Amino acid sequence: MSAPLRAQLGYAFRRPELLTSALTHRSFGAAHNERLEFVGDAVLNCVVGAALYERFPALPEGDLSRVRAALVNQDTLARVARRLGLGGEIRLGEGELKSGGHDRTSILADALEAVFGAVFVDGGFEAARSVIDACYGDVLAQADPASLGKDPKTRLQEWLQARRLPVPEYVVTATTGDAHAQQFEVECRIPALSLATTGRGSSRRVAEQAAAEAAGAQAALLAAGDRRGGG
Amino acid sequence: MSAPLRAQLGYAFRRPELLTSALTHRSFGAAHNERLEFVGDAVLNCVVGAALYERFPALPEGDLSRVRAALVNQDTLARVARRLGLGGEIRLGEGELKSGGHDRTSILADALEAVFGAVFVDGGFEAARSVIDACYGDVLAQADPASLGKDPKTRLQEWLQARRLPVPEYVVTATTGDAHAQQFEVECRIPALSLATTGRGSSRRVAEQAAAEAAGAQAALLAAGDRRGGG
Repeated sequence: MSAPLRAQLGYAFRRPELLTSALTHRSFGAAHNERLEFVGDAVLNCVVGAALYERFPALPEGDLSRVRAALVNQDTLARVARRLGLGGEIRLGEGELKSGGHDRTSILADALEAVFGAVFVDGGFEAARSVIDACYGDVLAQADPASLGKDPKTRLQEWLQARRLPVPEYVVTATTGDAHAQQFEVECRIPALSLATTGRGSSRRVAEQAAAEAAGAQAALLAAGDRRGGG
Repeated sequence: MSAPLRAQLGYAFRRPELLTSALTHRSFGAAHNERLEFVGDAVLNCVVGAALYERFPALPEGDLSRVRAALVNQDTLARVARRLGLGGEIRLGEGELKSGGHDRTSILADALEAVFGAVFVDGGFEAARSVIDACYGDVLAQADPASLGKDPKTRLQEWLQARRLPVPEYVVTATTGDAHAQQFEVECRIPALSLATTGRGSSRRVAEQAAAEAAGAQAALLAAGDRRGGG
């Protein structure tokens, strides 16, 4: 492990071979990180779950689950791993090396979980909690239960309802391609805001979410303009 | 909490109101156990996951996941909860009381997870680990990765393969009922053992698993008979 990474984790391993395992992808060979990833995934869920329980004392269980899922998903893990510069530390097989495995989201996310698992195995739960706090503290601090982990359609609907506006209408405007590779185009219409946006995807559901995402962004811009215009 | 339960958990709460919450079903009213169950589920997965990691140093990640899922599922949790006599301690609303909620598997399982969560919130990870060890130690000690959590068809196939016998044949022998409420009857045939068993269920898959379960039990009896006969 490089000195900068060690400093960022803020943890000194008694058994450094555990960290080496955590940073070894299965394509590299034996003693790879999958078992430590199993441990790390559980530790991360526990630490983040407990942190959310303490930080949001009135949040129901379903919302705690939703927010945690968004915080510990592959994309968030990989983002944290990139910031730590983890990619350059991971041992990969030749095929993965050549195909850019050092920056692959799944490889980065798995390795970071494995690092958490290695700290837990080496130093116990509180050591793992400190390292997770060091890596994840700002992600946790910014977590907003009102929107985090909600899909674009839900977010848009709640945004409209909070302003007492009617729910949007979703209309399939085109389907293209053969039956096994169809593409859908959906329009999201909000007449009250004179707004219509388009989304595309391989299913109606995906296209609707894309259209809702675009509508949400537009609606937020309109609202910001109103605030500026209205002073 | 009753004295016997306290003795079995081996833990004295600093904030007993946490245990009261853990033993309060949502049908009873506010301050129910769902948030603590969220915490407890994560703690249990972490403790059991780490214990399996240590105990089975050569077990791949996929098998660790399978074994853990079988150990922390609702049925196992409820079995442990019944042994602890937890049912009598749970506060329920009137409807649940009248309909036998004290012995309902889901209510027992959720309450036990919530108790683990309450210990974690009250006393930290190591306290929760001790309580889980006390409640779950024998379940963990008996865990057999070779079979635990595998479905009956997989178990039967592996049992036959270990004896170099051909895989069974599954044949749908009857379907009854209307389209929306069909019942399937499947025969599991193992000619090499002169064995045929029947299973029923609401889908072909369910019926096959039931037939395999019966075949596995029969095959084990036959094998035991062989061993006794052969001396």
